[in-house]
Amino acid sequence: MSLALDSKPDTDKLTTYFRCIAGCPGKHSIYDVIYTCPICGSLLEVHHEREPLKKRNALQWQQLLSSRASTSIWPYGSGVWGMREWVVPSLADENVVSMFEGNTNLFWAERLGKQLGVPDLWIKLCGNSHTGSFKDLGMTVLVSVVKQMMAQGSSVKAVACASTGDTSAALAAYAAYAGIPAIIFLPAGKVSTAQLIQPVCNGAHVLALDTDFDGCMNIVKEVTQDNSIYLANSMNSLRIEGQKTVGIEIIRQFNWQVPDWIIIPVGNLGNISALYKGFKLMMDLGLITRMPRLVAAQTQKANPFYESFKNGFKEKISVTAQDTLANAIRIGDPVSYDKAVTAITETNGIVEQASEDELAAAAAKADLTGMFTCPHTGVALAVLTKLIERGEIKSSDKTVVISTAHGLKFTDFKVGYHESTLADVNSQHANPAVHLPANADAVKAEIEKRLG
Amino acid sequence: MSLALDSKPDTDKLTTYFRCIAGCPGKHSIYDVIYTCPICGSLLEVHHEREPLKKRNALQWQQLLSSRASTSIWPYGSGVWGMREWVVPSLADENVVSMFEGNTNLFWAERLGKQLGVPDLWIKLCGNSHTGSFKDLGMTVLVSVVKQMMAQGSSVKAVACASTGDTSAALAAYAAYAGIPAIIFLPAGKVSTAQLIQPVCNGAHVLALDTDFDGCMNIVKEVTQDNSIYLANSMNSLRIEGQKTVGIEIIRQFNWQVPDWIIIPVGNLGNISALYKGFKLMMDLGLITRMPRLVAAQTQKANPFYESFKNGFKEKISVTAQDTLANAIRIGDPVSYDKAVTAITETNGIVEQASEDELAAAAAKADLTGMFTCPHTGVALAVLTKLIERGEIKSSDKTVVISTAHGLKFTDFKVGYHESTLADVNSQHANPAVHLPANADAVKAEIEKRLG
Repeated sequence: MSLALDSKPDTDKLTTYFRCIAGCPGKHSIYDVIYTCPICGSLLEVHHEREPLKKRNALQWQQLLSSRASTSIWPYGSGVWGMREWVVPSLADENVVSMFEGNTNLFWAERLGKQLGVPDLWIKLCGNSHTGSFKDLGMTVLVSVVKQMMAQGSSVKAVACASTGDTSAALAAYAAYAGIPAIIFLPAGKVSTAQLIQPVCNGAHVLALDTDFDGCMNIVKEVTQDNSIYLANSMNSLRIEGQKTVGIEIIRQFNWQVPDWIIIPVGNLGNISALYKGFKLMMDLGLITRMPRLVAAQTQKANPFYESFKNGFKEKISVTAQDTLANAIRIGDPVSYDKAVTAITETNGIVEQASEDELAAAAAKADLTGMFTCPHTGVALAVLTKLIERGEIKSSDKTVVISTAHGLKFTDFKVGYHESTLADVNSQHANPAVHLPANADAVKAEIEKRLG
Repeated sequence: MSLALDSKPDTDKLTTYFRCIAGCPGKHSIYDVIYTCPICGSLLEVHHEREPLKKRNALQWQQLLSSRASTSIWPYGSGVWGMREWVVPSLADENVVSMFEGNTNLFWAERLGKQLGVPDLWIKLCGNSHTGSFKDLGMTVLVSVVKQMMAQGSSVKAVACASTGDTSAALAAYAAYAGIPAIIFLPAGKVSTAQLIQPVCNGAHVLALDTDFDGCMNIVKEVTQDNSIYLANSMNSLRIEGQKTVGIEIIRQFNWQVPDWIIIPVGNLGNISALYKGFKLMMDLGLITRMPRLVAAQTQKANPFYESFKNGFKEKISVTAQDTLANAIRIGDPVSYDKAVTAITETNGIVEQASEDELAAAAAKADLTGMFTCPHTGVALAVLTKLIERGEIKSSDKTVVISTAHGLKFTDFKVGYHESTLADVNSQHANPAVHLPANADAVKAEIEKRLG
């Protein structure tokens, strides 16, 4: 366990540190191996004191961030490290582990927007990245901090997580790039080589344990007690610092204009917490003067945050998550619940849900206009449709949907859709190949029929 | 067939036009439906007259291109359209069909480079893109030109190609984004829904014909004779204009320094022709003063260009392409042979080949340092290793390997490697999961063993 920092007079560390989100006293170095408040057990958050950041005014910050976008000066070409003063200001250049994350396309969904009646519709394609999901944004921060910890003589020798999806893929890739050992824990017999192929290729030490996911977490906690292995699961708040840059980047891409709505698919609720944290910082520094309204989109099969929202956030509701096509957000008891409640309440936000059929249809419809959406993006797009139909989102509103992963990670979902084999899904947009004889007249007739 | 342009006094068209690569007279509008020289049947190329471009000096061009990199001013944030004056200067803003292609990571392969003894090693990750391959660079140009053709009243009603891979994926996505019908021709019974999932999702009209690939091409030619369907196959030279930007972009990312070597996997030879075309333009405009040496990397199973090179390019050799893991470059009779010969001879280049085992091992070894390479990138990396071993590439040389697609398009290849099931491949770097009891001591012992 770490010492509170109050007694360590290091200026840099004293302006950026972990603190308890429930308000307990104490500042903890972000280079310490600490995940939760030692007093109350709540999550921590990285806090950036505002005064030192106010030495630049809003316009100066805007100019600085714009000037760094995609520059070739290391490490500023990264969308995350282009705003390093807001992420981990004390990180040394030589410890930055970056693969040019961020600066992803803010895709103008011109055709889909017209179809839905909201022509000012944009999709932030976070999946066009090194490992194919937005998790890269957080992992560049976490692995960089670990590299600096190791350089400073920490006892940490490896990084680890219990995950079978995008988190393990991103952790393994960044660790491999840095030359830091990565360990992935998972229940034996439930995950195929294909699902794990990224960490396997990136040389992670993949341990399949004879237990379920909760059993894995218990083993992980026991094994990591001596602080020799740094945990990268969702309770680790460093990743939020990288993930928050996506919201700031959207504002920069709009030339510092704030969209009316941002819709994001949520499971463990770290990503929406991160969005809010970035916007809050921009508000405090004067770069924006109003918040976008945040919408958390859940799959109906794992909707605890939706149920809590319906309940007016009177209490945290947990559910038993069921199988869903949107398997990366199949979470019944979200870790970042408290942070996410703040994000929704402080932005006049909304939580909405989508069924399997709705998410699959929304994804397929978007693909017909040039996207290649993952099922989670389908959840967000289905929720978009509902909010338009309800009149919440108006035709003149500027709306951004966050696409969290590349569709290439979900070809089974797409093949199943177009072969009409998915459970609970009516494949209304299926587009199977047309079988024809090798005859020019038959081919011409078929083309004519479709072109109309 | 198009009229020669000499009689059409349009300044803009007269400075950028199609011309025959064999030197036949005639200038053809790039907005005409024309693929080969009407006199001799050779390929065409888009020629940019140099004098109008010399109105800016080298420094002015460098400043202009640098200032546009990743800007939010449409359409200059695209790596292709950030150099629009060198691509299709006469294209109107409203006809640009762009999905923010280019500006991909020039990945510093620090760990792999040290392992191989060439620390100044870089991998250009062209697969981190909208459809997951470098083909996006060419398709944004082709589909934009078609959009302008249609806006100007052309008879073209759709775009088409005969392809089962990256070309059809990119064509379908860009066409879907633009709202232009796309038609994909392929032999029936040989391609699964999974292989075609991108064009299927993007709403392309997929026609499976009862014939082989050559039979498809015959039908395509017959069906497109009335110029109502624009062909996007490799004989179309517009795509080269987009693909050439990757080489220019590499130079910009190095702050206008020229690397010593660029290695690229090749099949139909369009990509290496494009690289050379971009560098030639930079030389002519004074932005660089020497050429990088270009290396064409072929799979041993489809190596006509390698055989021709060994023969001193005395004649074009064709081969019967065999099955290979690098299936996107499984070409026995390359379309852009003549252009590629120029690229190799004018840059003191080299052609080399790699076996199945060599390409798979090179890909797996690279992945262990944080990449996620496709088999074609494996071919290039295997050739890199050979040239280092032969002493051609020196330890102080700056080398760039072009990675043409995202590994997520080739998970079967990677699963097969790590499950040791690939033909002709010894999976020396296989990294299967380790099965353990749910016991902390057993887990600690296993971790200790690996950490050493």
